[in-house]
Amino acid sequence: MDPKLGRMTLKEWVAIESDSVQPVPRFRQELFRMMTVAADTLQRLGAHVTSVDMGSQQLPDGQSLPIPPVILAELGNDPTKGTVCFYGHLDVQPADQGDGWLMDPYVLTEVDGKLYGRGATDNKGPVLAWINAVSAFRALEQDLPVNIKFIIEGMEEAGSVALEELVEKEKNRFFSGVDYIVISDNLWISQRKPAITYGTRGNSYFTVEVKCRDQDFHSGTFGGILHEPMADLVALLGSLVDSSGHILVPGIYDEVAPLTEEEINTYKAIHLDLEEYRNSSRVEKFLFDTKEEILMHLWRYPSLSIHGIEGAFDEPGAKTVIPGQVIGKFSIRLVPHMNVSVVEKQVTRHLEDVFSKRNSSNKMVVSMTLGLHPWIANINDTQYLAAKRAIRTVFGTEPDMIRDGSTIPITKMFQEIVHKSVVLIPLGAVDDGEHSQNEKINRWNYIEGTKLFAAFFLEMAQLH
Amino acid sequence: MDPKLGRMTLKEWVAIESDSVQPVPRFRQELFRMMTVAADTLQRLGAHVTSVDMGSQQLPDGQSLPIPPVILAELGNDPTKGTVCFYGHLDVQPADQGDGWLMDPYVLTEVDGKLYGRGATDNKGPVLAWINAVSAFRALEQDLPVNIKFIIEGMEEAGSVALEELVEKEKNRFFSGVDYIVISDNLWISQRKPAITYGTRGNSYFTVEVKCRDQDFHSGTFGGILHEPMADLVALLGSLVDSSGHILVPGIYDEVAPLTEEEINTYKAIHLDLEEYRNSSRVEKFLFDTKEEILMHLWRYPSLSIHGIEGAFDEPGAKTVIPGQVIGKFSIRLVPHMNVSVVEKQVTRHLEDVFSKRNSSNKMVVSMTLGLHPWIANINDTQYLAAKRAIRTVFGTEPDMIRDGSTIPITKMFQEIVHKSVVLIPLGAVDDGEHSQNEKINRWNYIEGTKLFAAFFLEMAQLH
Repeated sequence: MDPKLGRMTLKEWVAIESDSVQPVPRFRQELFRMMTVAADTLQRLGAHVTSVDMGSQQLPDGQSLPIPPVILAELGNDPTKGTVCFYGHLDVQPADQGDGWLMDPYVLTEVDGKLYGRGATDNKGPVLAWINAVSAFRALEQDLPVNIKFIIEGMEEAGSVALEELVEKEKNRFFSGVDYIVISDNLWISQRKPAITYGTRGNSYFTVEVKCRDQDFHSGTFGGILHEPMADLVALLGSLVDSSGHILVPGIYDEVAPLTEEEINTYKAIHLDLEEYRNSSRVEKFLFDTKEEILMHLWRYPSLSIHGIEGAFDEPGAKTVIPGQVIGKFSIRLVPHMNVSVVEKQVTRHLEDVFSKRNSSNKMVVSMTLGLHPWIANINDTQYLAAKRAIRTVFGTEPDMIRDGSTIPITKMFQEIVHKSVVLIPLGAVDDGEHSQNEKINRWNYIEGTKLFAAFFLEMAQLH
Repeated sequence: MDPKLGRMTLKEWVAIESDSVQPVPRFRQELFRMMTVAADTLQRLGAHVTSVDMGSQQLPDGQSLPIPPVILAELGNDPTKGTVCFYGHLDVQPADQGDGWLMDPYVLTEVDGKLYGRGATDNKGPVLAWINAVSAFRALEQDLPVNIKFIIEGMEEAGSVALEELVEKEKNRFFSGVDYIVISDNLWISQRKPAITYGTRGNSYFTVEVKCRDQDFHSGTFGGILHEPMADLVALLGSLVDSSGHILVPGIYDEVAPLTEEEINTYKAIHLDLEEYRNSSRVEKFLFDTKEEILMHLWRYPSLSIHGIEGAFDEPGAKTVIPGQVIGKFSIRLVPHMNVSVVEKQVTRHLEDVFSKRNSSNKMVVSMTLGLHPWIANINDTQYLAAKRAIRTVFGTEPDMIRDGSTIPITKMFQEIVHKSVVLIPLGAVDDGEHSQNEKINRWNYIEGTKLFAAFFLEMAQLH
């Protein structure tokens, strides 16, 4: 395998603007192109590739958009070998150079050993590292130590639309021979020490719309006599979380798993240099001062973030508008054993209470637009032990055993539908900036990650 | 005068995207083109036209943009006649068809006698009505009853940048012979009954920036351990006004002029059909139930509107971002005898108080980006009486004597610098939707408005 070739393919893949979050035809076309390019790459590797038509998606505004196909691919079907299925996604979060990127987000740019570009670490780089590992065996003309399957989608950032139905349908076909499932869609907790992830948070994404009329007002002509939708919305959003990060929705903490002494000890075992973490995050001060509190609030407690407002004045300058209709957006990261539909009811009831106390004549509509379950695994499963050994071989160190505060809904889904052990083996460093401006993957992580996957194939062969 | 010709010119003028609010080079070029087109029109009318270079404008981000020229024009200088100066502006608020316009906002479109287009009523239509009135005398080969001056600018919606310096400079030159100043940059209070305006509210426009870092975060990776800027900002904005529209900034009402019995009577005299007003506004319920309360809260009490947030997620879809740096925007409409710099101090102190109680590690910066004084006139000045008579002649009715809740800073400025009586003679109907989607001027208002200005010239000649 030529690592330069791997980087060139990453450059090609990053150049495709496969944004699944903004529901516009242009990005959907890019997503389809992305899936075609990936299918071609796997075919050239000798895989048997199926691109599954996923139909189309009905948006809240009535618009219908096609869903990019899911790639199911297979390499080898030796019944004497174990079968490892790799899940990845090739869609990305929105990126716009004007939002603070130092370069065109869709042109992979190397600076000081860092490969900058939207999707570089989330998740195009890791998908390619797995492909590179397979192609290394091919280049060396060695048999693959395990049978390999791929399931690659293009809607992860938009909530893996329609994927669950597909996995359910393929449960006894594509997934029937699968022994283990590997995902590499999160980050280490440090810049240099690898990790294995055994749990992820879920996510409930809410919109709260406040409407006076479907047209804006001029603040000179109407300011002073209206129940202004923005005043209502700001009060609603302000009722959700206090300045210490505590969520104010009644009952929201009721189902959070109680904290045990044993669990506390797992956090103590993790090396986290808070000073380095704060510096690499470029955050002056966190809500908490100890390593244990920080890890627990990222992994095992829920959090609420307010993302923004649609329909208000969001440009530079000074527009004297009273927006007629605004949509607030926030989400709650869920942890075991919170339940998505209970949270939906709690949030809706809370917002209705707050709104009714305002005696506003506006209309309020609360919607949960995404509901993704939290996930937790058994870290004594065999593939966890294999992954640990592969990490020792490539990096010469024990991995951090971590959870992830992000949501990778497919983990929970595989566990519940396919009933196979799922492991998350992240490749990216803590400062990769997934979902934000100047996302990158380190050249070192990309190359060592490729080696790690190859070593993991060999360890998995030992298991069988 | 051919009224069709007047409408065709309005179509041409509306087609120029002279947006002064969004500080981008493309719109500035359009503004310059707008001023050139207007100067040409005035020259063809026989006016002596000067386009005054206004230099350039330094934006907060360091960018420099040229300011469109101000047109000073003169028609006639007969010392036996009075001299009336007309102020108008040819810049417009932002307009984007995707925001809910039923047509391209820059293509004047007639539907049921309504001429839709950005700037149709604010302020291109009224400027053209005045020009049409002058050209009517020309077409009839009659002498103008008065000497006419024009001062026409292109930065009104952006706070009339640099205009005050120009008026100060021209005080003893261009303005030396001026007896009266007429502005037509607001609306009637009804759909059919004309009005004269003797007061306007001022405006203090604020930005409050909350910054953690200049890069966004992923809510999975950082949600739960940050002082999130959006949570701070929502709390700050939520502390400004209560659900009854009462402003919560301490001391803000201290300098509001006390309400007299005589003043209450002026509101009682105004005909306002609340039911019709509510229907034409398409508002289900106002904050107040009586005509007097509504008029007072639009004209003689301050109001606070929250306009929006820059830097947060404002697109359709569900992005799980924690914005790293956000800017909230709100403004307070000021009334006699509130003072701009006192208000600036009160708001800044209040936000600093609220922010310090949150113990947030973020940085907050409050800025007043515009500060415009309220204005009030003596309604017994001679030109007020002349305008009343002209209205009786053209419309056969007494005008509503009203104030305007909007800010027309030039009124206060003319009064204070030029020391001449200023009158506001609006032409547009209450439902014209200035600053909002589907702005329009009625064909009837545009034509009768032209007649009204012609009648006003004749009445002014009588005065002299």
